[in-house]
Amino acid sequence: MEKGSVSKATLGRLPSYLQHLKSTLKSEEYISATAIAKSLSLGEVQVRKDLNAVSGEGRPKIGYSVDDLIKSIEKALRYDDTTKAVIVGAGMLGQALLNYEGFKSYGVEIAAAFDLIEKPKNNFHREVRSMKDFDMFCRENDIKIGIITVNEMSAQDVCEQMMKNNIGAIWNFTPAKLEVPDNVLVKQENLALSVAYLNNQLVNKN
Amino acid sequence: MEKGSVSKATLGRLPSYLQHLKSTLKSEEYISATAIAKSLSLGEVQVRKDLNAVSGEGRPKIGYSVDDLIKSIEKALRYDDTTKAVIVGAGMLGQALLNYEGFKSYGVEIAAAFDLIEKPKNNFHREVRSMKDFDMFCRENDIKIGIITVNEMSAQDVCEQMMKNNIGAIWNFTPAKLEVPDNVLVKQENLALSVAYLNNQLVNKN
Repeated sequence: MEKGSVSKATLGRLPSYLQHLKSTLKSEEYISATAIAKSLSLGEVQVRKDLNAVSGEGRPKIGYSVDDLIKSIEKALRYDDTTKAVIVGAGMLGQALLNYEGFKSYGVEIAAAFDLIEKPKNNFHREVRSMKDFDMFCRENDIKIGIITVNEMSAQDVCEQMMKNNIGAIWNFTPAKLEVPDNVLVKQENLALSVAYLNNQLVNKN
Repeated sequence: MEKGSVSKATLGRLPSYLQHLKSTLKSEEYISATAIAKSLSLGEVQVRKDLNAVSGEGRPKIGYSVDDLIKSIEKALRYDDTTKAVIVGAGMLGQALLNYEGFKSYGVEIAAAFDLIEKPKNNFHREVRSMKDFDMFCRENDIKIGIITVNEMSAQDVCEQMMKNNIGAIWNFTPAKLEVPDNVLVKQENLALSVAYLNNQLVNKN
């Protein structure tokens, strides 16, 4: 795998390494993969592989510099250069994503959500913008990722409008099969699939 | 792989086969894997493998009985015996899942959602029940799957209460690492991971 391109599984573990390293930094200058593995209840081989994917190898008997490792992980998670995303479709799911705090730990910032009708922010929820401001917002804010949470019928239209505004990666929560040119990335999300698989395992266990 | 235990990828394609077969049933008694693959723009080998995982093999030159295949797929998707699930935590995400229509196609029914404060149903959203009715509801309705969409701090407590009520499979949307005995299944969901991976691909493409 090319340097910089990190597997999804490794990517998933990086934030917990980061959290652990930051809490260690106060007391230790160096840390071993063994110590990290033990603290986080992970396999040592896995930890070593994960860390080597984002950083150089640890030094024998000494381990990794905690400070360097923090910088390497933050770089892999793109803390220095967050990618901006917009959501189109501010129903329950769209708003849940808009107000979800977890994306920041993975280098993605939800810059705004759009819907046909704008909704002002309140104590609990961020503002929803009107679709008529969509094009201008995308251009002014260098938006790179589009998240589609409209209904299935509108998905392709929304996708076209995103591409028109230079969005190169689309996270599609609708069942619609989006038609895009080869240079546009699409990640198809199917929430039902996780629970279907869980159900299948449950039934076959009994 | 044991009969009945179907891979997640296959499971994901079954509803589209089903939809296609149902629309074919009116005109054709038999259908070939080749014809299905062509109609759905899928690889023929893949379709054959998927169908063989849930049904017997097709007959040479004749193919599969459309009627039998529909029954086999419905059985694999457990249309005959839907598994009931409950949601605990009716914030945005919990309510999005509660009102999502897509689970039925995969043999799972969201029987109810619970939160500290109950909310009556309205034109758009299903009712949210009070946690004080949780135990009774689970027992009376033979709930098998628990979906956790509370905050991280409350997740383990909710998990315990689910297990106390014989729930054997848990779909956890919080970052909490749940402690469960070996006989309880946990599916950890991390929505940020999908977008992080998309972002990583996007950045490495450019």
